[in-house]
Amino acid sequence: MRAVTIQENKLVVEQRPDPVAGAGEVVVAVRAAGLNGADQLQLRGAYPAPAGSPADIPGLELAGEVVARGPGAERFEEGDRVMAIVGGGGQAELCVVHERQLMAVPAGLDWAQAGGLPETFTTAHDALFTQANLQLGERVLISGAAGGVGTAAVQLAAAAGAHVTASVRDAARHEEVSALGADVVCSPDQSESLGPYDVLLELVGAPNLDANFAALAVGARVVVIGVAAGFRSELNLLALMGSRAKLSGSTLRARPLEEKAATARAMERSVLPGFDDGSLTVPIYKSFPLDEAADAYESFASGGKLGKIVLVTG
Amino acid sequence: MRAVTIQENKLVVEQRPDPVAGAGEVVVAVRAAGLNGADQLQLRGAYPAPAGSPADIPGLELAGEVVARGPGAERFEEGDRVMAIVGGGGQAELCVVHERQLMAVPAGLDWAQAGGLPETFTTAHDALFTQANLQLGERVLISGAAGGVGTAAVQLAAAAGAHVTASVRDAARHEEVSALGADVVCSPDQSESLGPYDVLLELVGAPNLDANFAALAVGARVVVIGVAAGFRSELNLLALMGSRAKLSGSTLRARPLEEKAATARAMERSVLPGFDDGSLTVPIYKSFPLDEAADAYESFASGGKLGKIVLVTG
Repeated sequence: MRAVTIQENKLVVEQRPDPVAGAGEVVVAVRAAGLNGADQLQLRGAYPAPAGSPADIPGLELAGEVVARGPGAERFEEGDRVMAIVGGGGQAELCVVHERQLMAVPAGLDWAQAGGLPETFTTAHDALFTQANLQLGERVLISGAAGGVGTAAVQLAAAAGAHVTASVRDAARHEEVSALGADVVCSPDQSESLGPYDVLLELVGAPNLDANFAALAVGARVVVIGVAAGFRSELNLLALMGSRAKLSGSTLRARPLEEKAATARAMERSVLPGFDDGSLTVPIYKSFPLDEAADAYESFASGGKLGKIVLVTG
Repeated sequence: MRAVTIQENKLVVEQRPDPVAGAGEVVVAVRAAGLNGADQLQLRGAYPAPAGSPADIPGLELAGEVVARGPGAERFEEGDRVMAIVGGGGQAELCVVHERQLMAVPAGLDWAQAGGLPETFTTAHDALFTQANLQLGERVLISGAAGGVGTAAVQLAAAAGAHVTASVRDAARHEEVSALGADVVCSPDQSESLGPYDVLLELVGAPNLDANFAALAVGARVVVIGVAAGFRSELNLLALMGSRAKLSGSTLRARPLEEKAATARAMERSVLPGFDDGSLTVPIYKSFPLDEAADAYESFASGGKLGKIVLVTG
């Protein structure tokens, strides 16, 4: 198979041996694989793949067709359209995935949308609901709302009946984020004054966190997912105690199979129906062929766009 | 009544009007009232009383006898031995308390023990179990274990079957903390190397927090209760994400009646039986008459002892 590989902090697309499905696993012929911030970190050597995932093939999400099944794999059949988050290796023509991590692709989604859905929507759903327990009528601030996880989070929070304030640095993106369902779209320096917030989803990192701590409601939940703008944060512990807030951080990538599978079941229950009835969408900025992975990564790094960048095969 | 009062950052014991019980409230003739770190903060003007509590009479816990009941107060009768956490006003001969906040004093406790029990044991129980959900067999680090909340937390965590590491700065206190049930007693600079920990109870403040973050197990819960040594902490958000930890802070004082009452019910269910069967104790360092409040505060501030300092009346 052809695969995107990372060699001495450079992207090289080259031939690799076809992977083989073990017990409970299937081989997926990848049709589309989304890019994520974690790929950029891995390219710079800062975010190695967890044990059990290909060490030098990036890609945390994919969609494609089942082409082979290992012993005991029975949830899907050859030809089924599936998608998943994976620990790595998604940006290749073939990828082995445990069947418990797979989800069926909703009928209305094309390959690019399906390949750009799992990581962002699973991350957003896990953060807002599993971790922060966002409730109907609560006020949520999504800091960095124009990114992949941000656009998913705005849609999910609005669908769940929360009041959504979306913080977006680039004023040119405000209208698009508003169209996704945000009640208020503001610049980062306005978000503190528009609080208080019951839930804060921090997708940018340290520079915003301390200021937004001043805008937390009593009992607030703060979830830190993205730290691209910095990971050393000054934290006012008295403000934390005073608001009786909970701060959590998380990554999906390092979780064991059973926990990744649990997020897939939560997605099937709570999120995927929204793609069938049209209430949720996967904004796509641009698709690149697998062989143009370097251009795709460069486009991702340059920022300033709304929607996923996806590698497509075949 | 006579009451300890704070006037221009000084303690003055003087005569005040007797308080009157409103609906659902009782007047308690205070027999003993424990000192806490929060009293020291209030004396310095740093921790004002919440609305509804006496603004200038300190004291967050008390024990005594019911001497009068307001309309609708039916849980206790005149003469009953009761104790409670309050928003303030405990360090006086009389204090009005809502009956839902009151707990019956376990039979085996004397007044000094009962007056020094509510704040520390309620804080420790709320932090370890309600907030951090400490489970049988988990490893807990109690940072600042020789203080009032610390000695309560060591006993409760050990009683619940956790493996307790107690961090204590003063080597002369190690043996006493060990006798309370800690599996390991160490100095603060050893605690990181003795991890990982499933639960970290931080009673000292900022200087310890960042180092102990390196010793968190996956899924760890961190609860910050004390910040006497500093409240601005550098926090490594990547470490938080990597360990998928939850950090929460809390105070009891500012909580509304219904939440304080809920902590009292949890105490009656889970903690107070331990004083009946002798598995829990309230270490008392020294009792001072109400009129010697200034000496008591000075003794508290000087540190270096294990056990509560309590003001007693009559």
